Amino acid sequence: MAQHRTGKERLTLFSDGVFAVIITILVLEMKPPDEATFGALLELWPTGLSYGVSYLFIAIVWINHHHLFNFTESATQRVVWYNFAHLFSVSLIPFTTEWLAESRLAAAPSSIYAVIFVFVNITYLALCWESVDRTSQTNISQRVRRLFRMRSFITIGLFTAAAVLALWWPVAGIALICLCLVLYVRPDVLQATSADG
Amino acid sequence: MAQHRTGKERLTLFSDGVFAVIITILVLEMKPPDEATFGALLELWPTGLSYGVSYLFIAIVWINHHHLFNFTESATQRVVWYNFAHLFSVSLIPFTTEWLAESRLAAAPSSIYAVIFVFVNITYLALCWESVDRTSQTNISQRVRRLFRMRSFITIGLFTAAAVLALWWPVAGIALICLCLVLYVRPDVLQATSADG
Amino acid sequence: MAQHRTGKERLTLFSDGVFAVIITILVLEMKPPDEATFGALLELWPTGLSYGVSYLFIAIVWINHHHLFNFTESATQRVVWYNFAHLFSVSLIPFTTEWLAESRLAAAPSSIYAVIFVFVNITYLALCWESVDRTSQTNISQRVRRLFRMRSFITIGLFTAAAVLALWWPVAGIALICLCLVLYVRPDVLQATSADG
Amino acid sequence: MAQHRTGKERLTLFSDGVFAVIITILVLEMKPPDEATFGALLELWPTGLSYGVSYLFIAIVWINHHHLFNFTESATQRVVWYNFAHLFSVSLIPFTTEWLAESRLAAAPSSIYAVIFVFVNITYLALCWESVDRTSQTNISQRVRRLFRMRSFITIGLFTAAAVLALWWPVAGIALICLCLVLYVRPDVLQATSADG
Repeated sequence: MAQHRTGKERLTLFSDGVFAVIITILVLEMKPPDEATFGALLELWPTGLSYGVSYLFIAIVWINHHHLFNFTESATQRVVWYNFAHLFSVSLIPFTTEWLAESRLAAAPSSIYAVIFVFVNITYLALCWESVDRTSQTNISQRVRRLFRMRSFITIGLFTAAAVLALWWPVAGIALICLCLVLYVRPDVLQATSADG
Repeated sequence: MAQHRTGKERLTLFSDGVFAVIITILVLEMKPPDEATFGALLELWPTGLSYGVSYLFIAIVWINHHHLFNFTESATQRVVWYNFAHLFSVSLIPFTTEWLAESRLAAAPSSIYAVIFVFVNITYLALCWESVDRTSQTNISQRVRRLFRMRSFITIGLFTAAAVLALWWPVAGIALICLCLVLYVRPDVLQATSADG
Repeated sequence: MAQHRTGKERLTLFSDGVFAVIITILVLEMKPPDEATFGALLELWPTGLSYGVSYLFIAIVWINHHHLFNFTESATQRVVWYNFAHLFSVSLIPFTTEWLAESRLAAAPSSIYAVIFVFVNITYLALCWESVDRTSQTNISQRVRRLFRMRSFITIGLFTAAAVLALWWPVAGIALICLCLVLYVRPDVLQATSADG
Repeated sequence: MAQHRTGKERLTLFSDGVFAVIITILVLEMKPPDEATFGALLELWPTGLSYGVSYLFIAIVWINHHHLFNFTESATQRVVWYNFAHLFSVSLIPFTTEWLAESRLAAAPSSIYAVIFVFVNITYLALCWESVDRTSQTNISQRVRRLFRMRSFITIGLFTAAAVLALWWPVAGIALICLCLVLYVRPDVLQATSADG
């Protein structure tokens, strides 16, 4: 029992370390403009926008990861591997963000950017199924689980739609991603079952 | 109750991870001179100055964050988001520091540098209001809160003044920032209410 | 007793911090293609492959490190130094990965890549001997230890073979490494003695 | 009391985060050779040597920091600031290491490299005085303190000598630094008073 807790705690701390490095390096990769003028800074708006969206997304992913691990009982072998898969897809965000910013929101990078968001959500869903659904927790009602699952599928659907849309209208794809993030901003459903904030 | 503590602790650890990466990478971004002479090293004084000031500022921000979280009772949804906003503004410091250093203290980068300091303070103030003021803590007297708030507004005012001043006299703006940091170096007011160091 | 635990805990947390930075920066070092097309992204397949393999390897190393420290009773001076040697060899992975990717799987980088894998395993074996074998733990049977040791030697042998093979057929060497990783994916033997996942 | 522990713990964790990032990024800054041959790798020996020495030094600094914080009772304002000064000097190591490696052990970089080692030791000594000497700990005898202080002064003297020596014979300065590190490798004196490893 005590060992189970340690295992889960170390996994949580390790994941937090990875999140902390990813979210920080993301913003650090923004290179200052060559000229020392406000105009040169404003020229960088696609960089600013894509980094802002990525920061917001990683923040949401961290919050959801945090919530999920409050419910997780133990770090089984599978939970560890799904977590690594989840962290791997999150760690691809800075790469695609940089590509998106450098191309100033071109079609291929916008689409790949949305695809990574889909991967992050799929690995998160796998992590949820493994760590919550397979355990017989009585404090999560069937209704809450259904709502939660529905929201996950809708999010994956919307991000997939954004990936397809971006092939023709990259800006529309990015706009759809921003819209999804607003929907995803609060982990309400899971939260409703817990006093924990 | 136990869950509340976990939530707050994980938020603290995550924030510390982000602070650790930001403060370290800040110094790591200093590129060594091309020539292997002392003269070439001395030539880098604007880089040294701006990195020193940024390091000091992030240290102060960390200390204040640390103090604040000693008083914070639980990590509510709002505390989490204001904390992400605070970390986001802190994470912009290396970007502006690099721009400031590369331009050798030009007007626009100096002004933007001060603006980021204002953002860091505003998000910190929001975090304070959310995590301390809204809770009915009897161990923080009204007088202490008033003093603390006054100091926050003075700091924000001084950094804003530095941002405007830097448009015409960048060096004066940077000097005013340095002066502010000396004022901000000790979180005395909050500390006076607690034996905790 | 309490101090022993603190020491071990701090060593674990420090190691996790190092692992978190290594695994993250590894993926962050992937530079986006210059052109904004899917073709340009596909051109990067050697980069993608080598980063994927390295990520998987570091994940396996972390899991094994995690398991080992569950059995470690105290962080002696030697455990601390073997752990630093282990982390040092792990920290060379991004360097060799980048060389491997840039050379598009050439002979010398492929061989050095396998050599680093050998170093990681040798330092891990030293860490095992020091932290588990020298303590008289009754909950690890002789049979389990023998199995575990045998598996370690086979792994080191296979990685050494991959290092030699890569000198003539780099792709075969990399393929052999991938095969080893599949064998190493589950720390079953040690796990069999513990309910801990 | 409980709050004191939290403060010290958070300071320890934050410091560990900074150490983890510094020691990792140090090795990550090694850039792979342009050619995919063993000869090109061997050409990088000054890089390899300087990174190896820096890694060893940071490992020693971490171990000493760890030992010191086992004795530290509470994180006072001064301990926090001396710790930031210590971390700042440690964070300059990658910068000087890179300069040293790029110049292939030239005079000025070798001397500055030794100067940073002196700074790291001075800030460590200040941290020791503040956190151990000023508290009335009966479990550290006068004799142990005297031995410890003597060793610190000898180390600072040797690193200063290395800084001067390096101005004329850089390789001799670096050799003297390596010699010092061997002396410093075990925190025996402090350890003798504690069963903690």
